[in-house]
Amino acid sequence: LICRPIRMKTITVNLKERSYRIILGTGIIRFLGKYLTPLRLGDFACVVTNPLLKRRYGAVLMAALKHSGFNARFILVPDTEKSKSFEAASRLIKILAGIDRKKRVFIIAFGGGVIGDLAGFTASIYRRGIPCIQIPTTLLAQVDSAIGGKTAVDLAEGKNLAGAFYQPRLVFSDTAFLRSLPAKQIASGMAEVIKYAAVKDPQLFAYLEKNISRILTGRCSAIKAEIVHQDEREEKGIRTILNFGHTLGHAIETAGKYRGYTHGEAVALGMLIACNIGTAQGLTTRETTKRIESLIQKTGLPTKINKTIPIRDIIKSHYYDKKFQGAKNKFVLLHKIGDPLIVENIPLKTIQSALLNSGDTSLNY
Amino acid sequence: LICRPIRMKTITVNLKERSYRIILGTGIIRFLGKYLTPLRLGDFACVVTNPLLKRRYGAVLMAALKHSGFNARFILVPDTEKSKSFEAASRLIKILAGIDRKKRVFIIAFGGGVIGDLAGFTASIYRRGIPCIQIPTTLLAQVDSAIGGKTAVDLAEGKNLAGAFYQPRLVFSDTAFLRSLPAKQIASGMAEVIKYAAVKDPQLFAYLEKNISRILTGRCSAIKAEIVHQDEREEKGIRTILNFGHTLGHAIETAGKYRGYTHGEAVALGMLIACNIGTAQGLTTRETTKRIESLIQKTGLPTKINKTIPIRDIIKSHYYDKKFQGAKNKFVLLHKIGDPLIVENIPLKTIQSALLNSGDTSLNY
Repeated sequence: LICRPIRMKTITVNLKERSYRIILGTGIIRFLGKYLTPLRLGDFACVVTNPLLKRRYGAVLMAALKHSGFNARFILVPDTEKSKSFEAASRLIKILAGIDRKKRVFIIAFGGGVIGDLAGFTASIYRRGIPCIQIPTTLLAQVDSAIGGKTAVDLAEGKNLAGAFYQPRLVFSDTAFLRSLPAKQIASGMAEVIKYAAVKDPQLFAYLEKNISRILTGRCSAIKAEIVHQDEREEKGIRTILNFGHTLGHAIETAGKYRGYTHGEAVALGMLIACNIGTAQGLTTRETTKRIESLIQKTGLPTKINKTIPIRDIIKSHYYDKKFQGAKNKFVLLHKIGDPLIVENIPLKTIQSALLNSGDTSLNY
Repeated sequence: LICRPIRMKTITVNLKERSYRIILGTGIIRFLGKYLTPLRLGDFACVVTNPLLKRRYGAVLMAALKHSGFNARFILVPDTEKSKSFEAASRLIKILAGIDRKKRVFIIAFGGGVIGDLAGFTASIYRRGIPCIQIPTTLLAQVDSAIGGKTAVDLAEGKNLAGAFYQPRLVFSDTAFLRSLPAKQIASGMAEVIKYAAVKDPQLFAYLEKNISRILTGRCSAIKAEIVHQDEREEKGIRTILNFGHTLGHAIETAGKYRGYTHGEAVALGMLIACNIGTAQGLTTRETTKRIESLIQKTGLPTKINKTIPIRDIIKSHYYDKKFQGAKNKFVLLHKIGDPLIVENIPLKTIQSALLNSGDTSLNY
């Protein structure tokens, strides 16, 4: 019997009757049941995950659930952006409907951003809402997508076009899952870490510059929890600043049909293009841009659009983004690190030339 | 120029920051714009409706919108329960995405329960929620489905299996629309009127018994508004009483593949079966059942299941109902008119024999 102290950190997302906790720690998955039981979620857990995660961690997760008296089964979805669709949600609902004639069912989203979005959206609409637990397994999901209740599926017209604000009942982030993550996925998550630092935390940014290799899940989770508390539905311009890098990031993902760049890579590119736009508007200094570019580079994320995605497709896709409505685009730009502002109606020409600046010479228009 | 006084009644659904008004009156549609403008909904109205309603009232509605400075277009959906599907929602979203790259768009649901549900659900998920206005045109929708924010689409497994609680910004009930309603649809709505009276308002019930031909939209809207205020998400057992007749009503609809009975007809049958179950449980007196049966009969609604829907299909469908979860069914039964109670775990045998009692001899098991 090996006894070693496990350090756990708890962050509360404060949303009155919909408040919930984020539990953070390394190697904590076996304590999951202890946190689930008091939530009175139901007796049957549908664990939405992908085949790799099931193979790797399925037994541990199942043991933790069974140990606390839950019944459970896995529902496997392929780990591609294509799983974020009405078809996939519809398939999940059919399975749920088959189970809960006997048991009171709840959902565990066990995976990265795609699984969290699909499972969260399905939980929000099935029987007009059943409980959802987020157990994020990627850095991206742990620092960002699992927190805050934004759930969605994609349409051909744009990313996340159908979705809901639907808060999970618990976010359980075991950083041990990150150990087996491929470098590309760690890098993808780091784009969101850099984003938090750039819009909210100059100290963290300075720390990252020196010490990029350490992962700071806790600090980012705390920033997100506070911002979601202040502006859950993105109505006050507070949560909006977390879209830094996402206006064109999403457009790059959509234009690449979700096969070109990972979300993190697209956000990294989006942040740099936003810096370029900021410079053109006389807001962002070259020094700020340089610091962000250099930090992105250190993480192994791209700083230039070097895949063959036509700029006209990116421009077209950005019209369909949720941040673009009523003929007004909306960008989060930076005064300086930790000091963002929201700017509407950036002229098309400015966007085009910022995109051109961000592209390799191979880029075709 | 004809001047005649228009009487309008306003009922408020009190839900803090999501409060909204129900405007009731006859011939009030031309005043719609006056109520829309202060809500700051956007500049482009997508009016979801069916071809018949567009032909009959399209010009009047469009004039009212244009007069107040709104742009608008119609989106036509067939008026069958099949329009309540992911496919139909997906098609609406594609159209919305095409429009709102130029304009800030909102939805007007102009029709009966199917259109209200489809349009409301689509409004709830598109960009995680855009404003929705309900202009119900049937009695069923005016007294019930347009109020309270329950929106959904159907799956083959069951009615309303995917949905959201998403409140409209305004309910605008012009009772002039009811004049051209076929008798069958008026009857369908009367089932809900009888339901309100049976669970909440003995005085209204007595009034209906004497005076069934008059339609009492206002009183039912007020009951619903108050109940939604008290228990929006059906968490306190208060809104649940409005499911009187719906547990088996939905199952009858689903088992008939939405082609057997209208919603109102199925609810009428469901109320009588619930009375039979109540009698078997020693709760409902034969006199109460008799009063309800006789009132249903007066409206032209069925009191016996006389279409060939096998009882085993109804039983099977009732397992998939949202009111059936974790191996427990849930019924609203009546002590007496105005005095309902919620009962769980009714034995299968009791349900079967209540169904048999409610069927014509032609009924096959």
